[in-house]
Amino acid sequence: MSTGFDLDHLPYGVFTVAGDRRRVGVRHEDTVLDLAAATGRPELASPSLNAFMALGPEVWRQTREEARALLEGGAETIALADVELHLPFEVADYVDFYASEHHATNVGRILRPDSAPLLPNWKHLPVGYHGRAGTVVASETPVVRPCGQRGGPDGPTWGPSRRLDVEAELGFVVGAPSSLGDPVPYSAFGEHVFGVVGLNDWSARDLQAWEYVPLGPFLGKSFATSVSHWVTPVAALDAAWCDLPAQDPEPLPYLGPGQVRGLDIEVEIELDGEVVSRPPYRTTYWSPAQMLAHLTSNGASVRTGDLFASGTISGPEPDQRGSFLELWEAERFLEDGSEVVLRYSAPGVGGGRITLGDVRGRIEPARAPLV
Amino acid sequence: MSTGFDLDHLPYGVFTVAGDRRRVGVRHEDTVLDLAAATGRPELASPSLNAFMALGPEVWRQTREEARALLEGGAETIALADVELHLPFEVADYVDFYASEHHATNVGRILRPDSAPLLPNWKHLPVGYHGRAGTVVASETPVVRPCGQRGGPDGPTWGPSRRLDVEAELGFVVGAPSSLGDPVPYSAFGEHVFGVVGLNDWSARDLQAWEYVPLGPFLGKSFATSVSHWVTPVAALDAAWCDLPAQDPEPLPYLGPGQVRGLDIEVEIELDGEVVSRPPYRTTYWSPAQMLAHLTSNGASVRTGDLFASGTISGPEPDQRGSFLELWEAERFLEDGSEVVLRYSAPGVGGGRITLGDVRGRIEPARAPLV
Repeated sequence: MSTGFDLDHLPYGVFTVAGDRRRVGVRHEDTVLDLAAATGRPELASPSLNAFMALGPEVWRQTREEARALLEGGAETIALADVELHLPFEVADYVDFYASEHHATNVGRILRPDSAPLLPNWKHLPVGYHGRAGTVVASETPVVRPCGQRGGPDGPTWGPSRRLDVEAELGFVVGAPSSLGDPVPYSAFGEHVFGVVGLNDWSARDLQAWEYVPLGPFLGKSFATSVSHWVTPVAALDAAWCDLPAQDPEPLPYLGPGQVRGLDIEVEIELDGEVVSRPPYRTTYWSPAQMLAHLTSNGASVRTGDLFASGTISGPEPDQRGSFLELWEAERFLEDGSEVVLRYSAPGVGGGRITLGDVRGRIEPARAPLV
Repeated sequence: MSTGFDLDHLPYGVFTVAGDRRRVGVRHEDTVLDLAAATGRPELASPSLNAFMALGPEVWRQTREEARALLEGGAETIALADVELHLPFEVADYVDFYASEHHATNVGRILRPDSAPLLPNWKHLPVGYHGRAGTVVASETPVVRPCGQRGGPDGPTWGPSRRLDVEAELGFVVGAPSSLGDPVPYSAFGEHVFGVVGLNDWSARDLQAWEYVPLGPFLGKSFATSVSHWVTPVAALDAAWCDLPAQDPEPLPYLGPGQVRGLDIEVEIELDGEVVSRPPYRTTYWSPAQMLAHLTSNGASVRTGDLFASGTISGPEPDQRGSFLELWEAERFLEDGSEVVLRYSAPGVGGGRITLGDVRGRIEPARAPLV
């Protein structure tokens, strides 16, 4: 059976061996190719992918071909068991969208049961907000249960979150920057976006519910956001593009109305060894290219290392929901010691399937509350 | 008359002379001391203040003493007219608060006339959100009028913002980082915060009004945020600390209830050569130390270069409002070609007044809308 990491995939990561310097590698099956050593490219002898990603799509294409040729030629690799993996890129700005109609509808129904679940702007623009870049962490980093203010009938109380949740998402990593004042059209997605990561946007629902009006989520989400060790190049997803559900009403021209293209990536949420949900990314409403076009439509620039995420991916079925809030209707959340693994797979260019990097995190108890 | 840049001030900036390498300098009167050359400290021969700021409070104190001694000893300086000034630090995460009660009340009254102007959480925590770090620009950078979606009775239209506004704020720059999982107590403000900048959080009110529910401001503010060229060290503000208005209800213990200390900084908003408002920062509700304590109370770490801002500073009087939305009750906004200058002054340690770096920006017309 395929590991999902054959020659059609070749994701990038940052690794060390026995505590030496961080450098860029490519995963092939259960091994890592030391791409810095194998190619001599100085941008790869770097503690993050940023210098390499900044070189742009032509270099990305050449390097991917070179890595494949090296591996086909029998280049020496390092066993995965012998390397330590790190956060693969330095996050510049982190933006999180809210692009799944099923998720937005579920959340609206649960949190605002007396009004229409989708707000008036939702079908006209991909709603998004800025998250905290400095607390994006690599898969396997423990997640300490956050403390914070929780609303209550007699005013707020302070303590460990009682409603700690996951959000199963995909993250898009910008390689080539744009200029301030110049929007990136939806057709230029491939000129700027280098790759895709798995992403868990851990959320403390009780903190979030109390704080988020009117300026949006803040401490309910800023304590940790986990991303996969491996960045799948957009080129490895050539066979995964698919039509998304029709958009009605038709969005404004800068959002590229018509048949909108998304990615047919399957997601699995595993809680303590049991798969509890299987959200399909092909059911999302707003496409990756639309999110990038919207994010820059006011002239905001993107930088190398920018990360923009899909928001929680939920499908139409009850067992396809991307957060516990939706899956268990706010009746059950994360316990201390629980481990969550998000897994992702997609059609590969060679006809098989590829496995994107997974995202793991275990909940540690809250630290002694500060008084 | 004092320029506000005497030996009691000595703010830091990043400069070049005739296009050479960027490096750190200290302003004294209308000259700049090349601190990299004068001290030989390698962290100062750097294109941003970040490497120096990361060294922590003891080095900040020593370097400030050293700069003063050099200037008192007659060290050679460069005329301000002969240098070009740049963005003084690389922004890690940018958080904007909403800490002025007068501002929050004015905005609530204008935008939500039928309900209580302050939301239930407002007096229990400093409401804040993450802004876009990659579009923080130095004073004097032109601001291109953003395009975007504006809500309307027949659905959104797209075009140049018609309600372009200023927000007069102060920004606090983190020098020494903290660790993920460990809150920074309010008493540790001085161990982490290096200095203060003037800040104009340009805002497109029409874009913001349509997009901001439920996840907060996004494109209405992400096109540009201007900061002063000069970073005033916290040490230069020793004489500016003052009591803030009493907080009722008493905030939770982690926010340091009791007599809360803020900064007696006077702000001026100048529009096309005319002073239109004079907001006093001493009237703000939440203090700088409370903002930092809240921001990290869930375990979120801060990094060197983090910028957190006060939110719009508005005083109790009609001519003390920090945005045009409030000042002119949404009747008048920025025209193309207009220039805004924000000026700041505070009591200096020697008994006089110091002038913080000003923040200038001129509005350029929208670029051809993308279709």
